Amino acid sequence: MANIAVLGYGTVGSGVVEVINTNKALIEARVKEEVNVKYVLDLRDFPGDPVEKILVHDFDTILNDKDVDIVVEVLGGATFAYNYVKSALLNGKSVATSNKELVAKYGAELLAIAKEKNVNFFFEASVGGGIPIIRPINECLTADEICEITGILNGTTNYILTKMSKEGLDFGTVLKDAQDKGYAERNPEADVEGYDACRKIAILTSLVTGRQVNFEDIYTEGITSITPSDITLARKLGRSIKLLASSKFVDGKVFSMVSPVMVDADFPLYNVEDVFNAIFVKGNMLGDAMFYGRGAGKLPTASAVVADVVAAIKNRDNHLEVKWDAEKFELSDVSESKKQFFVRIEDTEAGRMEAEKVFGVDEFITDESVKGECAFVTAIMTEAEFAKKEAMLTAIRNRIRMN
Amino acid sequence: MANIAVLGYGTVGSGVVEVINTNKALIEARVKEEVNVKYVLDLRDFPGDPVEKILVHDFDTILNDKDVDIVVEVLGGATFAYNYVKSALLNGKSVATSNKELVAKYGAELLAIAKEKNVNFFFEASVGGGIPIIRPINECLTADEICEITGILNGTTNYILTKMSKEGLDFGTVLKDAQDKGYAERNPEADVEGYDACRKIAILTSLVTGRQVNFEDIYTEGITSITPSDITLARKLGRSIKLLASSKFVDGKVFSMVSPVMVDADFPLYNVEDVFNAIFVKGNMLGDAMFYGRGAGKLPTASAVVADVVAAIKNRDNHLEVKWDAEKFELSDVSESKKQFFVRIEDTEAGRMEAEKVFGVDEFITDESVKGECAFVTAIMTEAEFAKKEAMLTAIRNRIRMN
Repeated sequence: MANIAVLGYGTVGSGVVEVINTNKALIEARVKEEVNVKYVLDLRDFPGDPVEKILVHDFDTILNDKDVDIVVEVLGGATFAYNYVKSALLNGKSVATSNKELVAKYGAELLAIAKEKNVNFFFEASVGGGIPIIRPINECLTADEICEITGILNGTTNYILTKMSKEGLDFGTVLKDAQDKGYAERNPEADVEGYDACRKIAILTSLVTGRQVNFEDIYTEGITSITPSDITLARKLGRSIKLLASSKFVDGKVFSMVSPVMVDADFPLYNVEDVFNAIFVKGNMLGDAMFYGRGAGKLPTASAVVADVVAAIKNRDNHLEVKWDAEKFELSDVSESKKQFFVRIEDTEAGRMEAEKVFGVDEFITDESVKGECAFVTAIMTEAEFAKKEAMLTAIRNRIRMN
Repeated sequence: MANIAVLGYGTVGSGVVEVINTNKALIEARVKEEVNVKYVLDLRDFPGDPVEKILVHDFDTILNDKDVDIVVEVLGGATFAYNYVKSALLNGKSVATSNKELVAKYGAELLAIAKEKNVNFFFEASVGGGIPIIRPINECLTADEICEITGILNGTTNYILTKMSKEGLDFGTVLKDAQDKGYAERNPEADVEGYDACRKIAILTSLVTGRQVNFEDIYTEGITSITPSDITLARKLGRSIKLLASSKFVDGKVFSMVSPVMVDADFPLYNVEDVFNAIFVKGNMLGDAMFYGRGAGKLPTASAVVADVVAAIKNRDNHLEVKWDAEKFELSDVSESKKQFFVRIEDTEAGRMEAEKVFGVDEFITDESVKGECAFVTAIMTEAEFAKKEAMLTAIRNRIRMN
């Protein structure tokens, strides 16, 4: 029998219990033994909930129970989670977590402890919710040199951008709607400023490089400056605006960045809408591949956590090695990375003349619904070159990178 | 040192050698040992090719060499491949194959031998080319009850349908173009009649059910009857036509089928174009997921084969169990499965009256570019009901299932 302890009975934690209960028979057939949720840890009580009978408030009960094989950590936040997970691994228990803050910050250290103790530290649900991406990177895309990994990794911002695009609404209005529907948090900063996506691309990039990529080193920009005008003018160019978290491997350099990008219709992520996530991977042999699905939500995320539980049971006493050394990987300075930029300006004679002078623009994009503004697309240039020129534009309203 | 023997130096075989040579350093870092292609088996000689030095014509040289750890089978066809692969496994060598005929027919038996000999039989490249799908099903989607698995599994037919759609050309013209470009074989039957996709969905369905699904039991229909009129009228409905290979798990029944389907724009496979493949999976917890990439081609397919080689090296003396019993799985009779149908008829008063009488149609789809024909969409009905009604339509030209 495999005994599981679930840390945290919030959205994902209750989902984990639900997935195990709903699919108990087939999961047990897969692992060939009984699967038992022995404890749920939460500070709160849940009177009347069936979980009441197995609820504990003290982590030591779990830690000291030799029968607990696997700890599921779905508390979120780094501090408590780190202490719990580290102790569990040191006590010879495998851990499955959905906690991106924890993994982005302590992944290398926790994997090293898991290796030393011959247990497993799994975190499939920390990126892309229910979408299998961590295991495919570690176990499937192993014949390739990865040239690029780019994801729509945050469902909230993708929902907001999709709704802005379909209904012509502004950011604030859609954010409020998303908050009312429970798709966005009351404090939406982590999502809309790109911090959540940043931690996720840090994890993916650490796995691709095999070394520690610090999320603090990744240039991160959110979606708060995107307006309906940007979306309308993007459509004129046959493009859509997505918040992309991306690492590109170019001539020995690695450029990592989170920012809105105006993507063309041929890019596989162009059609990813609403709360869906997707991860695009380019390998030097494989070419283009994409993984698509529900990047958040109770059951999809719990499905990935329980898949980790299944893997942990099937690999008792068999540490599956994952290369992620603690040694820091130095990302390249994104100011050297090259691309085209979309620039929206005040549509005045002075504004256009400035654009012509600074960027050599000879074609402006306008739309009858966009009053007093126009836009243009630059030549390919480095971020540094663009920043220098951008500073010379007094008429600038916004600029968005292009793929 | 891991010694590999490659059976077959055709497109995929030469790709396997190229992938190993090109990415040698990173592959060896991943498996932590040297990787050496010791033999290539082919009936032909390749004078001047570097492979000449390791070319053998007799399989026994490989079979009897105790230093050969892994046999890569990329010959295609079932007969020779079966004998070679079976002997290799019985001699304690792991096998990686891209051969869908072999896997569809003998997968269960070969997996059982691999288990008995404590080696591995891997076949990631047999479905979806470079797209990771076999390993994700076996190792990632393990917490879910699978409700549906539907794929665009044949690049040739997807290329043909895309080109017919974009350029308004008829099937024969596009097939010839695809043959000239090398995307379709001189004898295109296996692709255009759906036989290739049929074997692939048989493999996926065997993995999902854990039992032998015989490809001969899967209703299979190709794309040869699709005309530009169908595509034009589909577009009027906001739909595209794809050759889908699908297994749906409905109330304890399993309906497997390969056929053209008119899919709506919300379906994740709607946008999969050209030679790309994609596999849509629906889990009872996970919801919708999709895996997308290059379903064929030398290097993408070889990338998946070499990823299997990496897994075989990392799992020496560790058989990774895959549930696929030899016991036959009984598919349900597709005549019971329910859906809507698109029906194209002669646009005459008699034709419309017939449609009204038999199907109760009150709305016909027409397009000015489609002369003398119109179409309608039926209510949801079983295949059996449809077949009965269809037989009463003398004006019928074609019918296509809808998703």
